[in-house]
Amino acid sequence: MTSPLEYRKDIDEALERFFVKKSQGKKGIELEAIVKLRDFTLRGGKRIRPIFMLAGYWLNGEIDRRIIDASISLELMQSYLLIHDDIIDRSDMRRGGPAFHRMFNFDEQINEGLAIVCADLSDAYSHEILLNSEFPEDRLNSAMKIMAETVEMTGIGQLMDITLPLSDRVTEEDVIDVHRYKTAQYTINGPMKMGAALSGYRKIESIDNYGIPLGIAFQIQDDILGMFGDEAQLGKSVLSDFKEGKKTHMILYAFELADPRDANYIRERLGKKEIRMEEFEKVRSIIVESGALEKTRRLADSYYQRALSSIDSLTDDGEKRAELRKMAEMMVKRAK
Amino acid sequence: MTSPLEYRKDIDEALERFFVKKSQGKKGIELEAIVKLRDFTLRGGKRIRPIFMLAGYWLNGEIDRRIIDASISLELMQSYLLIHDDIIDRSDMRRGGPAFHRMFNFDEQINEGLAIVCADLSDAYSHEILLNSEFPEDRLNSAMKIMAETVEMTGIGQLMDITLPLSDRVTEEDVIDVHRYKTAQYTINGPMKMGAALSGYRKIESIDNYGIPLGIAFQIQDDILGMFGDEAQLGKSVLSDFKEGKKTHMILYAFELADPRDANYIRERLGKKEIRMEEFEKVRSIIVESGALEKTRRLADSYYQRALSSIDSLTDDGEKRAELRKMAEMMVKRAK
Repeated sequence: MTSPLEYRKDIDEALERFFVKKSQGKKGIELEAIVKLRDFTLRGGKRIRPIFMLAGYWLNGEIDRRIIDASISLELMQSYLLIHDDIIDRSDMRRGGPAFHRMFNFDEQINEGLAIVCADLSDAYSHEILLNSEFPEDRLNSAMKIMAETVEMTGIGQLMDITLPLSDRVTEEDVIDVHRYKTAQYTINGPMKMGAALSGYRKIESIDNYGIPLGIAFQIQDDILGMFGDEAQLGKSVLSDFKEGKKTHMILYAFELADPRDANYIRERLGKKEIRMEEFEKVRSIIVESGALEKTRRLADSYYQRALSSIDSLTDDGEKRAELRKMAEMMVKRAK
Repeated sequence: MTSPLEYRKDIDEALERFFVKKSQGKKGIELEAIVKLRDFTLRGGKRIRPIFMLAGYWLNGEIDRRIIDASISLELMQSYLLIHDDIIDRSDMRRGGPAFHRMFNFDEQINEGLAIVCADLSDAYSHEILLNSEFPEDRLNSAMKIMAETVEMTGIGQLMDITLPLSDRVTEEDVIDVHRYKTAQYTINGPMKMGAALSGYRKIESIDNYGIPLGIAFQIQDDILGMFGDEAQLGKSVLSDFKEGKKTHMILYAFELADPRDANYIRERLGKKEIRMEEFEKVRSIIVESGALEKTRRLADSYYQRALSSIDSLTDDGEKRAELRKMAEMMVKRAK
C-alpha cells in the first residue's frame, strides 16, 4: 500500500501528459496560452489538493491511474484561482517566478485581460479533465457538484478576504470563516470529498470533521509563517500580509492582549504600504511579547487536535488511519 | 406546441426563483454579491442562450419545467463572461446600467477584484444549476462536457479578439474563427447541443451545421449594427468597435476594395481613442461606397442560408422546422 503522499511525481507526469495532449495541433495565441499555463502550473506547487483527492479516494479503494488522472483537475482549478488572485492583489510574483499576468509582454491592460481569460480557460480544462475521467456517471456528477460548491465557497472566502481589511469590526469568528471558506474547503476538504465521491465512499459528509478543522489549523499556521517564516522558503516578503492589512488571529490577539500603546502602534501601521523593517520588527516583538503568538499557536493546535480525533470514524484500516495522521501533521507542522 | 421563443418570461421567473433561494440565510458581502448578480443578470439580456437550449431540447421532446430550470445555467455563465469582458475592455456600461465592476463603491482595484470573484461565483452557480437539474446522470454528464467545451472555445475566441487588433496580418479566416469560437459556439451551438444532450437527442453533432453558420451570420450582422445601428438600441456608441481597433469584415473588405487613399484614411484612424464623429462618418461612407458593406452583407447571408439548409436534417417535424427557421431569421434579421 502506497501513501497518497508518494504520488507527487505521478501527478506531475499526468499534468505534463495533459498539456502535451492539449497543445497538439494548436497554434497562435491558443498555443501560447496553453504553454504559459503549463509553465505556470508545473513551475511550483506542492500538489496538496490532488494528494488529498487521492486520500479521499483511498477511503474506499486503492489508488489507481484513473484517480491520478482525475486529480490534476484540482491543479488546473488552482491555477485558475491563483491567476485571478494575483491580478486582484496586484502581485507580481508567484511560485518563484512572475505572476501569470506578468508572463505577457503587452501593455498592462492587455496582459491582465489575457491573464483573466487564460485563468477561465484553466477552469474549463479542470472541468474537462474531471468529466473525461473513467468513473461511473453518478460518481462523476457527485464529484462535479462538490467541485462547484468548493469554487463557490472559495469565492465567498475571497470576497470576505478582500473586504475584511476595510472593516473596523473584524471578529475572531470572521477570520475563522475566511479560513473555512477560502482555505479549508478549497485545499483539503473539497478535494478529499471529491476523491471520496469518485470511489463511492458512503460517509462523504463525515470528511468535514477532518478536512475543515485541519484546513483551519493549516491556514492559521500559514499566517504565522507568513509573518515569522523564512522569506526564501515563503517565496514572498514577511511584510506582505501586514501591508495588505490582513487581520490575522495574531493581530486580533495583539489588539486584545498588548498594552494599549503597543496595540495602537500596530493599528497605526497595519495596511500601510510604506512600513520600514524596523517598525515591522517592533510589530513582531509586540505580537511575541503580548502572548498573541502563543495564543494563536494554541488555537491552531486545538483545530489540529480536532481533526486528528475524527480520523478513526473515517476508516477502520489502521494503516490508512496512520497515514491520515501523517498528512495532518505534514500540513500543520511544516516549516514551509 | 409552444415555440422556444415564447418562454422568455418563464426563464426570467426561473432566474428570480434561483436568486431568491440562493440569498436565503445569506449575509454580509456574500448577500451583496448575490443581490448584485441578480440585478446584473435580470437587468437586461435577451435570454438567447436559454432559448436555444430549449430549442435543442425540443428536437427530442417537449419543453418542460426541468429544462427551463436547467436553461438558466447559461444566463449565469453569460454573466460570468460579461463581467470579465467588461473588466478586460475597461467598459463602464452594460445592459443599460453600470458594468458589474462599477456597481461597487470602493477604490478601482477593490471594485475590479470583487467583480472578478463575483463572476467566478456566477460560474460556480451555473455548474450547480445544471448539475442539480433533474435529468439522468449520463445526459447531465454529456451536457456538462459541452458546457466546458463551450467555455473553452469562448476563451480562445476572447484571446484572439484581444490580440488580433495588435496584428498587421489579420485575414478574413481569422475573423471567422473568432466568430466561430467566441459567438457561434457560445451563443447558439453550445446551448442548443446542451439542450439536445439533456433530451437524449441522438444526432448532437449535426447541430453544428445549424448553430455554427447561424452564429457566424449573427456576429457579422452584429458587427454591421455595431457600426451602422441605432445607439439607443445598441446600448453603446457606434464608435466603440472602431476605437477598439476591431478588424471586422467591413474593415478588411474596405482595405481591399476602397481606393488606397481611402483605405489609408481608415487604417490611420482604426484603434485611435480620440477619433471625431466627422472622421467616423467619412470612415462609414468609405465602407458603404467601396462596396465593403454590401460584400459583408452577402457574406452574412451566405452563412445564414447555410444554416437554413441544415434544418431538415435536424428534425422531421414540420412545425419545429418552421420554428428553427423563424429563430434563425430572428437572429440575423433583427434591427437590434
